[in-house]
Amino acid sequence: MTAERYHGVGAAPGLSIGQVVWWRKESPKVETQTVSDPDGEIKRFEEVVQQAKAQIQQLRQTTAERIGEEEAAIFDAHLSFMEDPAYIGEMKNRIRNQKKNAEAVCRDVTDEMSQMLASLPDEYMQARADDIRDVGTRILLLLSGVQPFDPSMLKPGSIIVAEELAPSDTAQFPPGVAGMVTARGSKTAHAAIMARTLGIPAVLGLGKTLEELADGDTLIVDGEAGSLIKNPDPQTEKEARSEMERQQKLREDALKKADEDAFTADGRRIQVFANIGSLNDLEAAVHNGAEGVGLFRTEFLYLENDQWPTEEEQYGAYRKVLEAFGDKPVVIRTLDIGGDKDLPYAELPKEENPFLGHRAIRFCLANPDIFKVQLKALLRAGVHGDLWVMFPMVENLSEVREAKALLDECRQELQQNGVETASSLKVGIMVEIPAAAVNADLLAKEVDFMSIGTNDLTQYTLAADRGNELVAPLYDAAHPAVLRLVKKTCDAAHEAGIIAGMCGELAGDPKMTEVLVGLGLHELSMSAGTIPEVKEEVRNVQTDNARTLAERTLVQESPEAVRQLATKEPLKS
Amino acid sequence: MTAERYHGVGAAPGLSIGQVVWWRKESPKVETQTVSDPDGEIKRFEEVVQQAKAQIQQLRQTTAERIGEEEAAIFDAHLSFMEDPAYIGEMKNRIRNQKKNAEAVCRDVTDEMSQMLASLPDEYMQARADDIRDVGTRILLLLSGVQPFDPSMLKPGSIIVAEELAPSDTAQFPPGVAGMVTARGSKTAHAAIMARTLGIPAVLGLGKTLEELADGDTLIVDGEAGSLIKNPDPQTEKEARSEMERQQKLREDALKKADEDAFTADGRRIQVFANIGSLNDLEAAVHNGAEGVGLFRTEFLYLENDQWPTEEEQYGAYRKVLEAFGDKPVVIRTLDIGGDKDLPYAELPKEENPFLGHRAIRFCLANPDIFKVQLKALLRAGVHGDLWVMFPMVENLSEVREAKALLDECRQELQQNGVETASSLKVGIMVEIPAAAVNADLLAKEVDFMSIGTNDLTQYTLAADRGNELVAPLYDAAHPAVLRLVKKTCDAAHEAGIIAGMCGELAGDPKMTEVLVGLGLHELSMSAGTIPEVKEEVRNVQTDNARTLAERTLVQESPEAVRQLATKEPLKS
Repeated sequence: MTAERYHGVGAAPGLSIGQVVWWRKESPKVETQTVSDPDGEIKRFEEVVQQAKAQIQQLRQTTAERIGEEEAAIFDAHLSFMEDPAYIGEMKNRIRNQKKNAEAVCRDVTDEMSQMLASLPDEYMQARADDIRDVGTRILLLLSGVQPFDPSMLKPGSIIVAEELAPSDTAQFPPGVAGMVTARGSKTAHAAIMARTLGIPAVLGLGKTLEELADGDTLIVDGEAGSLIKNPDPQTEKEARSEMERQQKLREDALKKADEDAFTADGRRIQVFANIGSLNDLEAAVHNGAEGVGLFRTEFLYLENDQWPTEEEQYGAYRKVLEAFGDKPVVIRTLDIGGDKDLPYAELPKEENPFLGHRAIRFCLANPDIFKVQLKALLRAGVHGDLWVMFPMVENLSEVREAKALLDECRQELQQNGVETASSLKVGIMVEIPAAAVNADLLAKEVDFMSIGTNDLTQYTLAADRGNELVAPLYDAAHPAVLRLVKKTCDAAHEAGIIAGMCGELAGDPKMTEVLVGLGLHELSMSAGTIPEVKEEVRNVQTDNARTLAERTLVQESPEAVRQLATKEPLKS
Repeated sequence: MTAERYHGVGAAPGLSIGQVVWWRKESPKVETQTVSDPDGEIKRFEEVVQQAKAQIQQLRQTTAERIGEEEAAIFDAHLSFMEDPAYIGEMKNRIRNQKKNAEAVCRDVTDEMSQMLASLPDEYMQARADDIRDVGTRILLLLSGVQPFDPSMLKPGSIIVAEELAPSDTAQFPPGVAGMVTARGSKTAHAAIMARTLGIPAVLGLGKTLEELADGDTLIVDGEAGSLIKNPDPQTEKEARSEMERQQKLREDALKKADEDAFTADGRRIQVFANIGSLNDLEAAVHNGAEGVGLFRTEFLYLENDQWPTEEEQYGAYRKVLEAFGDKPVVIRTLDIGGDKDLPYAELPKEENPFLGHRAIRFCLANPDIFKVQLKALLRAGVHGDLWVMFPMVENLSEVREAKALLDECRQELQQNGVETASSLKVGIMVEIPAAAVNADLLAKEVDFMSIGTNDLTQYTLAADRGNELVAPLYDAAHPAVLRLVKKTCDAAHEAGIIAGMCGELAGDPKMTEVLVGLGLHELSMSAGTIPEVKEEVRNVQTDNARTLAERTLVQESPEAVRQLATKEPLKS
């Protein structure tokens, strides 16, 4: 065994050492047989279908708890195939009519349907083709009694290696997985997002060289640099381990101070908040020292339901978050569906460019009956804490005015019925459409705060879909044009005397903290896990130096140049 | 008959009076019959298929000549169904095997295929379903010998009224159609774009009130205000006719002076150029007084071919345009496919958000072999005129540098083979991604000119797909945020001492001319038909007043307020 180095796309940061475990996804070989007792065969098949359903429901629940409702929703597609007469029903028909064994019938129907779906020139359909293959394999494995690859058996310290990982795969990772390496995928791939959420170092896009990794190989994964070292010599391994320890120590030190508020070295307070995707995220937010919630995504309430959630259901959830944070601010974003977030019962029309379509506040203003249920729940919950209501995807003043008018209307309706409503509550907008940043001075006059959503702002400013791997190299929130719009928004907020925050992925990148403080942000909101580290970064910032650094980023020629400037030349005093 | 007023969406400007003609699109009723001589029936069917093909080819050619290659390309989908064994072949099989008459078989197969396509949750497929119904109706009408609605028989002065008009319908409008009124559709609908191209006043989105219009009703159509008057009293009709005459006179006066260069009242030259979509547009451009070409779209060369056009083919076309304009500037835009422009032989992958995807310069830089053929053709053609090469969808500096390096490489390769290349040629970019406008100062240093494409710039800045009717009310290039980005681009161009032009739809709106001059544009490029009017507007502009007006538009609260300011308070001296 000699040490070899490989290079891919660094998709989730972190350094780790572990043993390669190939995640193989193979369907069992199936032989076609004639069955003499079709009814018995159907009974056997139905039992397996029930087992498969139970497995998927279990996966759905685990994913919702460990990762989030949005990610868990992928299993709803799997479950819907389990109810589909054209799929499960067709298999039963064939067992009965063709007297074939369930394995052969499952293989045939799955192949036919997935090929049909895959042949359609539509990414959505192709994703459904992947889903149905996933479901078909699950049923086949159960029918054949073959033990499938069981991720729960993975030893801590395993580095998972696979051609490609579906969200339904990463959802099954047990705690302790040390790394993730794939042949396909990019920084914006779903697997990369999952890896970052789970805090697992990941190197993707290895291509064919992936085949040079074998089960049991020792692997150093550097998810920041995107590099791998296979079977390192003892000296290299020792160095890596000591670097890991150093990083671990830094994280522990940061965690110890996580509960302290973050002040810059020259004494300015920067609020470090948590992004929250469901009530399951509450504990981690508190544990990691969140000084409030900068983005509470309400979609999970809608996604985990099969109909519009009631005012009562919503009130309960919002109240829980507000109570958990006492007198600390909780920014709750109103419903943001459309774009890449579908809601089956909303019956959204299919759009050519959903990211440029009828989503978020646009949908809500067009459907005031649905919107008002949420606004009323918010007004009632606001009694129990410091509620800030945030409208997503605002691009003009009249949307803000219309939304505020609806909020007033709801307040009046509640009061008329003698229901208590929040006596004070802040109203703000997400700045995530270029027009909102460009016109931030006009919008700032109408709101109490503005929070920059860098994920959408970046994709619109650069005209690069953040989910499209073909344009992934173009998508980078550190683009000077995006930073200029951030600055414009901060300047407008200061001028109007309101708060400027950020809740996109950029806010949680500790390497960019100094730049963001320098651009004028008062508040940064991020996944709970990165809060301690970002707080530590804030403590190292000298505001004057940060401003100089930020000014310099604005005239850089590329995102790469910005990132280099931000890390290599920190201009620290 | 009493006068009635209706209001819809003003989708193409102009005032006209005419008689209502309903455009009815009905399939003939078909009875299923048994045929005793299937071979004879197949022969009859094949003859009809040939006739249908000939009709479609004729339509394709007329559309390409009258409207453009891009619009003509829709008939390629129709023709491809005529060659499809699953469609035409299946019909022949059924005539042979089921001994049914061709009419019944055509109805059945068309229904089955169109329902299958329409059931898929994908706009692309739904458009194909419309196509196949269109083709099926054509074959059925020919088989049945029923005289279809024949647009060529329409009398001049007809106002066409229809539930909805497909591009294949508008393509058949004879000259002299006075107006277009539909129940469905919006400003951004394909029918609206066609109406503006053809200069036909259009009011769309009438909804159910459309049914109150009957064949033969007299109708005044105000495509600017979006209003209709049915069976006006003599006084109203007289007033409308005199307004029409006044407008006609203005147009004629403008046309008389079209050949004169446009100077503002205080003597500043503003260049008024033509947008050109194919060689067929050349004559109108020259006739209407274009002082050059501000946007020569090269896509038609690619769309009218079924493989990549050769260097020689491209050279011929570019040379023709350059020679037609002598020493006047001709801005040729390099290939802009992707987004809403597909090219079957390019085998572009289907994307979730094609407008935010791998299009234009992104595609070209990723496919240098294809790109270099075009660049070489341009370098050779540049010998014959004043060529400006323009790269679309640029969002960062490295794209510009990479494209320029490829251009140099092509020049060297040609020179090594002793081929003459343009001794001087300008290189510029389209500013149509927000990042390019925001960073215009950085980009301006690398190019000779910048031309603002307001159509894309608007949809990205506002995150509103210009083809999506659901967000059509949001899409307006007169949005203050868009105008601020226009100003930023102009300022950067002035600072760098290069030319700032505009070639999006906004440039051709005479009501916005003063604002655009005030924002600092040197050059405006538009559809040939509006050149004379815009030149007249330029002649009325006082630069100082225009600047004051432009500054005021930047702090308006909405596009409506901007448009009102631009028309109602012209601040003329």
